[in-house]
Amino acid sequence: MALRAAARHQCGLWGLLSQLSSCSRHGRVSVSPVLVNKRTNSSTPPKISVDFDQSTGVAVMYMQSPPVNSLSLDFLTEFCINVEKLEMDKSCRGLIITSGQPKVFSAGLDIMEMYGKSPERCGEFWKAVQDMWLKLYSSNMVTIAAINGSSPAGGCLMSLTCDYRIMADNPRYSIGLNETQLGIVAPFWFKDTMTNTVGHRTTEISLELGLLYSPSEALKIGLVDQLVPEDQVLATATQNMSKWLTVPDHARQITKSMMRKPTIDKLTSNREADVQNFVSFITKDSIQKSLRMYLEMLKKKRG
Amino acid sequence: MALRAAARHQCGLWGLLSQLSSCSRHGRVSVSPVLVNKRTNSSTPPKISVDFDQSTGVAVMYMQSPPVNSLSLDFLTEFCINVEKLEMDKSCRGLIITSGQPKVFSAGLDIMEMYGKSPERCGEFWKAVQDMWLKLYSSNMVTIAAINGSSPAGGCLMSLTCDYRIMADNPRYSIGLNETQLGIVAPFWFKDTMTNTVGHRTTEISLELGLLYSPSEALKIGLVDQLVPEDQVLATATQNMSKWLTVPDHARQITKSMMRKPTIDKLTSNREADVQNFVSFITKDSIQKSLRMYLEMLKKKRG
Amino acid sequence: MALRAAARHQCGLWGLLSQLSSCSRHGRVSVSPVLVNKRTNSSTPPKISVDFDQSTGVAVMYMQSPPVNSLSLDFLTEFCINVEKLEMDKSCRGLIITSGQPKVFSAGLDIMEMYGKSPERCGEFWKAVQDMWLKLYSSNMVTIAAINGSSPAGGCLMSLTCDYRIMADNPRYSIGLNETQLGIVAPFWFKDTMTNTVGHRTTEISLELGLLYSPSEALKIGLVDQLVPEDQVLATATQNMSKWLTVPDHARQITKSMMRKPTIDKLTSNREADVQNFVSFITKDSIQKSLRMYLEMLKKKRG
Repeated sequence: MALRAAARHQCGLWGLLSQLSSCSRHGRVSVSPVLVNKRTNSSTPPKISVDFDQSTGVAVMYMQSPPVNSLSLDFLTEFCINVEKLEMDKSCRGLIITSGQPKVFSAGLDIMEMYGKSPERCGEFWKAVQDMWLKLYSSNMVTIAAINGSSPAGGCLMSLTCDYRIMADNPRYSIGLNETQLGIVAPFWFKDTMTNTVGHRTTEISLELGLLYSPSEALKIGLVDQLVPEDQVLATATQNMSKWLTVPDHARQITKSMMRKPTIDKLTSNREADVQNFVSFITKDSIQKSLRMYLEMLKKKRG
Repeated sequence: MALRAAARHQCGLWGLLSQLSSCSRHGRVSVSPVLVNKRTNSSTPPKISVDFDQSTGVAVMYMQSPPVNSLSLDFLTEFCINVEKLEMDKSCRGLIITSGQPKVFSAGLDIMEMYGKSPERCGEFWKAVQDMWLKLYSSNMVTIAAINGSSPAGGCLMSLTCDYRIMADNPRYSIGLNETQLGIVAPFWFKDTMTNTVGHRTTEISLELGLLYSPSEALKIGLVDQLVPEDQVLATATQNMSKWLTVPDHARQITKSMMRKPTIDKLTSNREADVQNFVSFITKDSIQKSLRMYLEMLKKKRG
Repeated sequence: MALRAAARHQCGLWGLLSQLSSCSRHGRVSVSPVLVNKRTNSSTPPKISVDFDQSTGVAVMYMQSPPVNSLSLDFLTEFCINVEKLEMDKSCRGLIITSGQPKVFSAGLDIMEMYGKSPERCGEFWKAVQDMWLKLYSSNMVTIAAINGSSPAGGCLMSLTCDYRIMADNPRYSIGLNETQLGIVAPFWFKDTMTNTVGHRTTEISLELGLLYSPSEALKIGLVDQLVPEDQVLATATQNMSKWLTVPDHARQITKSMMRKPTIDKLTSNREADVQNFVSFITKDSIQKSLRMYLEMLKKKRG
């Protein structure tokens, strides 16, 4: 059922994988790269590139894990290390997250981390997903998502943790928590983050149907804050950041914490149970079978 | 005060009773009636008629208790039995609720169940109202309200429990929790259900003033999801149901439960206190006097 | 930082002080003054004037503390005494709050109550702010804010406690909880009141950025309910009040309490901690220094 649904809508959680796997990478020139990731391994290019402009106090983080910035364990680990570095750097006040890949912001959680893996490994993966959310949702930096491509599932979640969301006004892109369409379920803290953004009713219908929204629909329901032409997403994010940085940091930070603390506390006091819940769900035979069929379908498409 | 207000607005909780009591019943032909209620008593026609199409897995439940589908104890009992039957039938995945009466979806709670009755009987009635809400709000089926007429008070509550609401675009119809206009108070779980749908502020002003909304107003505030011409309400509900049924059941059901469980738990852990609260309120001399005056006014109108 | 931000936006919490301090007071003739405040001191004119029309059961409370109705300890004390008097008067069913000063509803908390004062005095002041909120937010009367001028910070809070908000449609006026712009933080019960009115996301962005909204923006996000030409604010409030008073008092009051009690309980069970929190924050050297610089800037502007 999940697979048929995903095929029909052609926009499932990881459907982007097949759609985009043959896209060529567009070039991007990093400017003023104060912080640059060292390659942890000479044969593996970094999945994250950070440009930090000390004169403005603003870092831009490019996700560049071809083809679709899937949130693998490696990706999430590298992502979290970079966020933490910036968080601890007192001179960094603002963080813009964007994609270095064409057409996609992030396709969400990496299906390969959930198929045929041991419960231990699945648990490790899920803790990394929690880490990403906790770090971003509780960040003291001003965080802006420059959504320059499609952003389903985990990609949407990442956007929702930011203080502000600017999306490319391209009707071929979509954004939403569409997990249900694939037969899996967004956990309570995905749900809480979306409810905090668009309210209870929109979240209910959106999660029950696994809806993906076009940019204009997303703007209408408040899932994103602003639409701009595709080539102006990053520039607009930078301009907006300037406005946010006029607000005294300590007052903004205390206010942000006051708004988000109850939601964050719910996960921090239930992390282990949430991991167990995910592991027992994803390692079920029926779910593993669905994932296998889905992967085989992808292979055929590519072949 | 309550009575004057109700008369002035001509749209009170049970105001429909007098407005509609002389309407003739429009014919409707049941198709593919797999589940049909047996008449529990040869002299009493069933208040609920169910058409279940096994090929689609969708049941349509027609409320047909003339003149205005008032929610009496008998009606609620029959209603709940039917919902429970469908809920336990694994082949039934979707439920459309609509009215078999002209011009009204349901006029809400039956005033005769609250006037001159013993506390025990009032308590029994209130438990049946709770049952209806609990069964619908926690249903594993996809539930769609096909609101083909006015839907004040308890009729609005019934609609609000559904996953989706389609209303006839007829400006003479109205919908809302208007209890306050009659001097009675919507209990906390009516309030919670409305807040989950339209948010805190709209619920506050709506309940404080006992507002009834026209279909276009209801759409604007999110009290209903879609308006269609009157003769297309059921067809549109059926089309929408197809879309809902493309989503894998188990993922949708877990998601629905996650969204609604806190609200449901609040009532289930306070059912007895809520019954006592209702009984002690409704059996007050002042409230009974208001109800008597209201009923006398209705008699005069008819006479 | 706070001061620079305030200067740039020219609309900070107490920025109105300098903008408006030279405005002449427009005359207003009180009609049917059944309740009139006795001057507590022959040299101090009352800061509050109340016109109570016993024939309608509606009181109009004019704030008249030149130049901008700053919420000083004296003002708040007088305000609360008047609200309490009306609350205890069974014949008073509705309260309209408006400004007797030109161009401003209320500029919010008085900066002079927070600068160079002893912790004891600061604590006394904060208790008075809590008192105002508690009395208004839990009032059994119908309360309508007739917002005939700018209404930043504490002035916005006062408006938010009311059942209905009508604002003058003058683009030079603004309304919002802009505390963050000045480097201070709206406490949790300011936040809760705003969230109950405009939802979580709008409150989050609004408080993080310390946004002030024009009347049309305020209407769009639901911060106010209605805009009318400036000279019709009070008349419209009176007309609206008539509509509210058609609803049976007891049902409306129980409903209002049901909607607001959880929010009120949060403060009443944390009043002392909230006072301590405010006192320890406002008496910090860094905050006092900011306030001193701000006051010196105001002096220069006037000089």
